[in-house]
Order: sequence, then C-alpha cells, then structure tokens
Amino acid sequence: MNTLTSIKAAPSPLELGRFADEATPLIRNCWYVAGFADEISRDIISRRLLGIDIALYRTLAGEAVAVRNRCPHRSFPLAKGKLDGDTLVCGYHGMQFDPSGRCVNMPSMPLVPTNANVRSFPLAERGPIVWIWMGEADHADEALVPETPWLADPAWKSVRGQYHIKTDYVTMHENLLDQTHFPFLHPGTVGTPEYARSKLDVRRDGDVIVIDRALRDAAPPGIYGVPMQLMDKKVDRFSEARFVSPALHTAYASVVDRADASGEPKTYRFNITHLLTPETNGTIHYWWFNTRDERLDDAEADAFLLAASEAAYLEDVDALEWISEVITSDIEPQFDLNFAADKPGLLMRRALFELAEAETSPALTAKD
Amino acid sequence: MNTLTSIKAAPSPLELGRFADEATPLIRNCWYVAGFADEISRDIISRRLLGIDIALYRTLAGEAVAVRNRCPHRSFPLAKGKLDGDTLVCGYHGMQFDPSGRCVNMPSMPLVPTNANVRSFPLAERGPIVWIWMGEADHADEALVPETPWLADPAWKSVRGQYHIKTDYVTMHENLLDQTHFPFLHPGTVGTPEYARSKLDVRRDGDVIVIDRALRDAAPPGIYGVPMQLMDKKVDRFSEARFVSPALHTAYASVVDRADASGEPKTYRFNITHLLTPETNGTIHYWWFNTRDERLDDAEADAFLLAASEAAYLEDVDALEWISEVITSDIEPQFDLNFAADKPGLLMRRALFELAEAETSPALTAKD
Amino acid sequence: MNTLTSIKAAPSPLELGRFADEATPLIRNCWYVAGFADEISRDIISRRLLGIDIALYRTLAGEAVAVRNRCPHRSFPLAKGKLDGDTLVCGYHGMQFDPSGRCVNMPSMPLVPTNANVRSFPLAERGPIVWIWMGEADHADEALVPETPWLADPAWKSVRGQYHIKTDYVTMHENLLDQTHFPFLHPGTVGTPEYARSKLDVRRDGDVIVIDRALRDAAPPGIYGVPMQLMDKKVDRFSEARFVSPALHTAYASVVDRADASGEPKTYRFNITHLLTPETNGTIHYWWFNTRDERLDDAEADAFLLAASEAAYLEDVDALEWISEVITSDIEPQFDLNFAADKPGLLMRRALFELAEAETSPALTAKD
Repeated sequence: MNTLTSIKAAPSPLELGRFADEATPLIRNCWYVAGFADEISRDIISRRLLGIDIALYRTLAGEAVAVRNRCPHRSFPLAKGKLDGDTLVCGYHGMQFDPSGRCVNMPSMPLVPTNANVRSFPLAERGPIVWIWMGEADHADEALVPETPWLADPAWKSVRGQYHIKTDYVTMHENLLDQTHFPFLHPGTVGTPEYARSKLDVRRDGDVIVIDRALRDAAPPGIYGVPMQLMDKKVDRFSEARFVSPALHTAYASVVDRADASGEPKTYRFNITHLLTPETNGTIHYWWFNTRDERLDDAEADAFLLAASEAAYLEDVDALEWISEVITSDIEPQFDLNFAADKPGLLMRRALFELAEAETSPALTAKD
Repeated sequence: MNTLTSIKAAPSPLELGRFADEATPLIRNCWYVAGFADEISRDIISRRLLGIDIALYRTLAGEAVAVRNRCPHRSFPLAKGKLDGDTLVCGYHGMQFDPSGRCVNMPSMPLVPTNANVRSFPLAERGPIVWIWMGEADHADEALVPETPWLADPAWKSVRGQYHIKTDYVTMHENLLDQTHFPFLHPGTVGTPEYARSKLDVRRDGDVIVIDRALRDAAPPGIYGVPMQLMDKKVDRFSEARFVSPALHTAYASVVDRADASGEPKTYRFNITHLLTPETNGTIHYWWFNTRDERLDDAEADAFLLAASEAAYLEDVDALEWISEVITSDIEPQFDLNFAADKPGLLMRRALFELAEAETSPALTAKD
Repeated sequence: MNTLTSIKAAPSPLELGRFADEATPLIRNCWYVAGFADEISRDIISRRLLGIDIALYRTLAGEAVAVRNRCPHRSFPLAKGKLDGDTLVCGYHGMQFDPSGRCVNMPSMPLVPTNANVRSFPLAERGPIVWIWMGEADHADEALVPETPWLADPAWKSVRGQYHIKTDYVTMHENLLDQTHFPFLHPGTVGTPEYARSKLDVRRDGDVIVIDRALRDAAPPGIYGVPMQLMDKKVDRFSEARFVSPALHTAYASVVDRADASGEPKTYRFNITHLLTPETNGTIHYWWFNTRDERLDDAEADAFLLAASEAAYLEDVDALEWISEVITSDIEPQFDLNFAADKPGLLMRRALFELAEAETSPALTAKD
C-alpha cells in the first residue's frame, strides 16, 4: 500500500524538468496503432501519426501497407492516387510504388529511376488492430508488439469506438491512470463515491506503471452491474490499471458475485484497452475496446456497455480538450500542483521523459 | 477654443513612440467592467478579461465572485464545474474553493491542502454594472470605481447593449473621442453635417480628456429629436465627451428646446456610457447605456433609442473591425497621418501611454 | 529535340538554392492582372495583389483606377467608402482622393492637407484584361504589357473563368509547363496516353521558356476533337507552351485535319491564356481564357469548351492545393526529386530566381 500524503504541492522547477509534458519530444521507437484492421482496405486512406502523414491500404492478398503520404517527386499526397494491383499509383504523374515503397515505374522516364523511393513503415496486424512502427526500421521488432489476446479470443466479447482528441497524449495517459476523477467527471457511469479516496497500490516496473485496487463487499459500478444484472448485490471488486507503453493503457476489472444462482462464486471480468497514437504533440487518435468474458451473446449488454463507454470516454474527451484550451490560450503559465493521488501520473511522466531522453541521446541516433 | 491646424501630418517616430497603440501593454490597475449585473448569477460563466480567463458567479446571498478560471491542480476550467452552496467545485477531481479562492476540500486528500488556492479578483457592484480589479489586489480601492449614478437613478431611464469587437481598446477610445466621423460613418443617426468641422474645446485634466462643444439654434440630431418629438424645432445643443479611464468613456448631451408647449425652456439630457474591457490586446468587450431624463415611460422612445443606438454602434464595430483587419494583414506598415481634429485621440493615447509606462516601471512592480 | 535522361534525381542543395520556390521574394516589376475588365466598375472592389490590398474602380469616363486600400489617416479600407464623381471618399472621416491618389478634401480641415496622399498604381487596359504595375512607378512601361491580341480580336472566340488557389504561383507555373501529368490528373479531358512520354523541344529564350511538341496522325484530344467534330479522324497536332512572365503562361495548340469535307487541309487553333497574380507568397488569383478561331458562333462548342476547361483546371486547383497542404503541414521537409521531364519547370524556376535576385539587388533598389 502506498498512499502518499507528502508529495509536496509545488514541485521544484528542477524536478518538473524531469517529467514529460505536451512539449516533450514524441517517442518514435514504439509500436503504435495505425488503425482498426477494418479501417484499412483497398480504398487508400491517409492518417497523420507522430506528425507524419501516412497512406494506408491493403494488397490484393490482404496485407496492410503503410507508406509516407507524399510522392518523392512533387509532394502529391499518394492517398489521393489509386491502386493498380498491389502498386500505389501517384495521381499527378503516375509514378508507381510497390508495397515496400520502391519505385517500379515513372511513366515520363524510359527507365525506372533508382533511388526514387517512398519511405514505408513496418506494420503488424493483431486481431482487430494494425500496429505501426514509426521509429528506425531496423529497430522494428514484432516481439515488442503489445499483447492484447482478449481482442481476438472467441471466449471474450468487445464493444469498441474511436475518437480524435485535441489534447496531448501525456495528459490523456495521466487521465487514464487517475481514478480519483471518476466520481466528479463520470458520476453517471464508472464513478462511485469511494473512488475519490480509495487506497491504491502503485508501482513502476521498468517502463510500466501498475495500479492495483481491491474493494470488498461493495455496490457494483453501474457500467458493469447493470449489464451483468448484479445491481441488487454486494460484490468484491478488483482492478488493475497499467500504463504499458506510450501507445497502450490497459485496465483489468473483476466483479465477483460471491454466490450466484447456483450458490457458487462467479467472476465477471472486463478488460479495457485504451490505444493512443499522437497525431501531433497536441492531438491524438484514440481507439478503445471494452471486452468481457460473460454474457457474450447478450445484445442488450452490448448496447449498454457501448453507450456507457461512449458516454464516459466523451466526458474525458471534453475535459481534456477544455484543459488543453486553457493551457494553450492562457497568458500566465501555471505550474500545476501535485497531490498524493497524482503519483501514478507522475511516475508515468517520469517514465515517458526517460524514454524520450534515451531516444534523443547521441548513442541511439548513432544506431550503435 | 482650440482648433489646431498645425499638428504636423507626419509625426516623428520619436513622438509616435510616446502614444499608446494596440501593442502597448494593457493597464491592469484600473476598475474594468466584468459584466452587466444580471449576467452574473448562480450559473457560472467565464469571460476573458485583460488576457486572463475569469469564472464569475454569485453566492447564495447574492454577492458576485470572480476567480481565475483554471484549477491550480490540473488546469480544468472551473466555470465547467458546479456550485455547492457558496463553494465552487472543480468538475475534474472535485476540488473545492470558497469565494475568496481558498481551497476548502480536495476529496482525494485526507486533509485540506494548504497553499492550493485559486486567485480571486476584487469586485464592486454599482447598479447594473459589476466592476472588477485585475491589478494588484492591495491597490484595489473601491473609491476609485468610476461614478455613473444615472444608471441606478429612477429619475433616469436607460436602453443598453453589448458587443464583442475584434479591435484594440485604444482605437475604440479614439473613435469615441472623435466626432468628425459622425456625418460619414453615421449619416442616418447621430451624424449631422456640421459635426465634421465643428469647433471643439479639448483639454486634458490629469488622465481625463474632455471635449466640449456647443451649437446654438440648430436642427436636432435624429437620434434625440425623433423620440423627444423635437424634429420640427431648432434647438441649442451642448455636449461633453470624456475619456474617464481605460475602462470608461462618457458622453453628456443636452438638447434645449427654448420654448416648449408652456413657453418655458426645456432641457433634454442624454448620458451615454461606453464601457470597454480589453479581452486581449486586439479584442474588447463593449457594453453601452443610452440614458435620458425625459419621457421615461415612453415605450416608443425606448424602442427608437435602442434601435438607433444599435445601428450607430454597429457601424462603429464594423469600421473598427475593418481597420483592425487592414492593420493586421497588411505587409507594409503605415504610420497613420494626424490632423487637428485628432487632438482628443492623441491626448488620450498620450495619457494611456503614460499610465502603461508608470505601471511597468520598477517602482510599482516593487510595490513600494 | 531535347529529352534529357540524365538530370540527376537528387539535386545538390547548392543548385536548389538557385531555383525559385514558394519562399522566393515576389517579383514586383512586372505587369500583372488586376482583374477582368468587367470586374471593375463604379462599384469599388478590393483585391490583394502581391500582398498589398488594392481598391479598384472606374471614373465616370470609364477609366480604371487602382489605389492602396488603406486611408493614410486612420487605415480605413477605402473600398468600403464611396465614389463622388471621380473622387474616392473614405467611409470614416470623408477624406477624398482623386484618381491619382492625391487628397483633394479632408472635411475636418479648413485647407486640403498636403502630403496626405494614397499610393496609386499604374493600370493598362487591354481587351478583357486590366493589367497593374505593382513595382516602382517610374519603371511602369506600357510597352512591357504582354500581348494577347486574340482576346480582343473578333476573328477569335473565348470562354473564360477564374479561380482563387491556395498554392504559390511558382508551383502553378511549373504545373502549366508540365504536360506529363495530363494522362494522370486529366484523363477525361486533355490527357491522352502519349503525353506521358512525348518528346519535347524545350528552350529558354531570355526570361521566356518555350516548349514545342508535334504529334502526327494521332487521335485528337477530346477537349478539342469533340467541339470541332473531329473525333472520327486522325489529325496532326502541334503545341507550343510559353512561360512568358511571372504573370502569364500561354499555350498555342493546333489540330490539323488533313482533308476536310472539301478535301482541303484545315487547321483549328486554340490559344490558352493562363493569367496568374500572386495574392501572397502562398495564394494566387488565376484567370484563364480558352480561345479558338473556328466555329465561333457554335453555342454547343462554347458550352463544351467551358465545361471541359473548368473540369481540367479544377483538377489542377485540387492537386496544387493538396500539394501545398502537404508541404505546409509536413514536419519533415522533403527535397523533391527531379526527372528529365521536369526540365521546363526547372528552367522557369531558374529564370524566376534570377528575376527575383536582380530585383532585390542594391543596384535596382537604388533606381540607377
């Protein structure tokens, strides 16, 4: 147990300098989400990821492809072109690129120009998610793709959604690690009063931040109690929230009915997958899944969980965009105060800062 | 009498440097309007004043309260929160502030954190106006609140309005001190031809600029002649216009019917109150009252004065926004020419410049 | 014949520095289009040309007038004023200017102020076009106005249009000199497959770039073949495209029917006039004429040529705006690759660079 009461309210500027914020360089050597798998098809789309505009499509065999959305000849956005088989054809002069980004034809030239390629990006498709590596290509290791097996497992059932948010991903990660806002920002869904001052176990494990919480013999939160038909019971609740990487926050929630109809204890599990890809330093693409292991074929549960998740996450979107607007437009900078409950967020900011620092150090850029 | 003909057309750059313009620092130690009294209620509103976003509400006892619209914890805009009695509750983590800005509860903390306050601003309510002091709190002297007793006196009757204008407040003050534009910008309302070259008495009295003008045996201007039913008469007209402070311009107009139905002379007085609060250096909040001491219960006069005032002031708004757009977008800066009739505006620009200079001098910032 | 295959794909930065791009200073000493002649009337309009906002109107005698759209007194946009005979009256204080820009009245002043003028710009009207000189007035030589006699000759017939484009004029000129994009960007109108790799004769002649192309015994392009009723024939095609000045690109196309109904050869000529005036470094005003010497009274030909031209030029507008957006928003600059077919555009960029360099050299600014 670790309920600090002594993190001082005004951190020294020196310490602040060691925590990531919206100005910290984005971390490139990381698997991020490029999109839901079913967003990527034979219709080319474009999406800005970590500041770089990317064109996304699938080959005839169904393999997802990502290349920079800018022709190396006259900067035409390639996503406005078309596909000819597996080849991407620029809409301006017909220059053609294979899925690796290699130029295979320039109609105005008798020979294929060498060294006229477009940068391609490694992708890894896992269930409903296509991951992309925006860093140095020779560091792209598929073993590092975060594991989210519940998203592709028939023993689990998901509802899902996506938003574009005008905030920075650091603030969004802090929001996801912070449960003390639930009763105030989400009173109608996930917030129950005891969240504000519940005891947390917080730890940093490498670059991962983990929060554990247990609550016994309590009312279930509406978002899970209603669709699982547990609102008339007291339950035990366990939750773990994890900052896994710059791209991923996962929350594992369990609601335990100590004696179900058969008299046996029964556990209802919910895995919440929050996927963040910075579009720029100040805007993010956000995809989420709310996945459960009970009542899989219950369409009413689907509808309830979808509506409740959308309501809660839109409350976060609104709050974070309001805060971003305050920070951006205010003429007097403010050093936000920190309290004990902010420890998970501060640990995450420290981890992100160290990742950014390592990435911009000479050692890495020299690719040693 | 003071009709200069010799202010030279092209002032030297040195002299220009001594006149306020849109780039001059805003003057903070001054009472500005925060809003009409009836804009501030139990529904929290926010408004940016001198660059700082302010949350405004009333206590249960009806006292107006102003605090910075930014929670000191995570920068959430407090106006998006709610009121719990007289306490302002942040919508993100439930942090609570009393009307003085002192934190009285942080739900995630067992004890109330000290030194976690939000800045509050002195207010002074006078009739239909709530004034705010944006400067150093220990300089806030209610004796300095400008006096506008006619706005709360039952012997007078007002129509009123408010606009947001995309211009700087210096240019707006100059426009208010300038009557030579009336026949050209306001031909249908306040402009009568003799305004363009009428003789003015202009003087600077401390930081106040005063213009006096008298016109005997003339046609009344439509804006006053029509509602007072004087258009078939010749009248004597007297007017005084005053730059009172960065926040206030007042105009006192009298129309004298030398012999009314009873054969006696009768004076119709109109006090025009122009209230300006810079939102930023380039935008202003503008409130106005057109107040008279005759025909108080005449609804037709109300309607006419309201419509004519709105028409005239919107002509000013349009003109000033066009000018601001020209100045902002032009690639070739221009040093505007000055003529004799610009003397009131130049005196005001000089006074504003000196106020700004005094405020940014070391002596004041050291709070001696 | 000059089909380079050896322009290297990656030009050295040093060489790049000698080619104009969107950041190159605009060339001021040049006749540009101010508008179609029938856009300028007794209703004052304003238009930003080379960064400077201009007010345009006609005198009672019909002569076009251009002055800076900013009163020298308080920066009011003069186009919001009105005309009094040939005199432009400012809408703010009634200051009056004659067509040469000289102040002829300031109502608040007993005497006309000297040296209170607004800058006027030389104009030259030629058929449907009013040309303007934005450079030093004493360099404005009407002999330098580009000749486009077909626009005013009854033996020719035009359709025409105009667009505002969010791109720089250098990129637009390059697009006009580049015919290898026709089959890809304009497949439905001017693009026939042989354009992509057709042989060109390219030459620079002073500051003029000329491209010649001949194609014998070929299918006519739809845009000309359909309205001239030649689609069932093989024709000889000749075309010349000319970068004439920063303001003008002309294309001369001929389609030769070797044996018409009477058995004689017959030539159909089309002159395409592309007129570009930079609004700013990143936006342009664009006017075009498609002018022919056959079937002058054929309303169906008019309608077809208008629709086909609009379709093709809007494809250019879209492409160039997409490219401009890519270049503006991308966080990683790109040095575009150049191929043999880019030679005309590169010669034009070199000529524009030299013009800009000459204009910003000390010799010229000293007006020697």
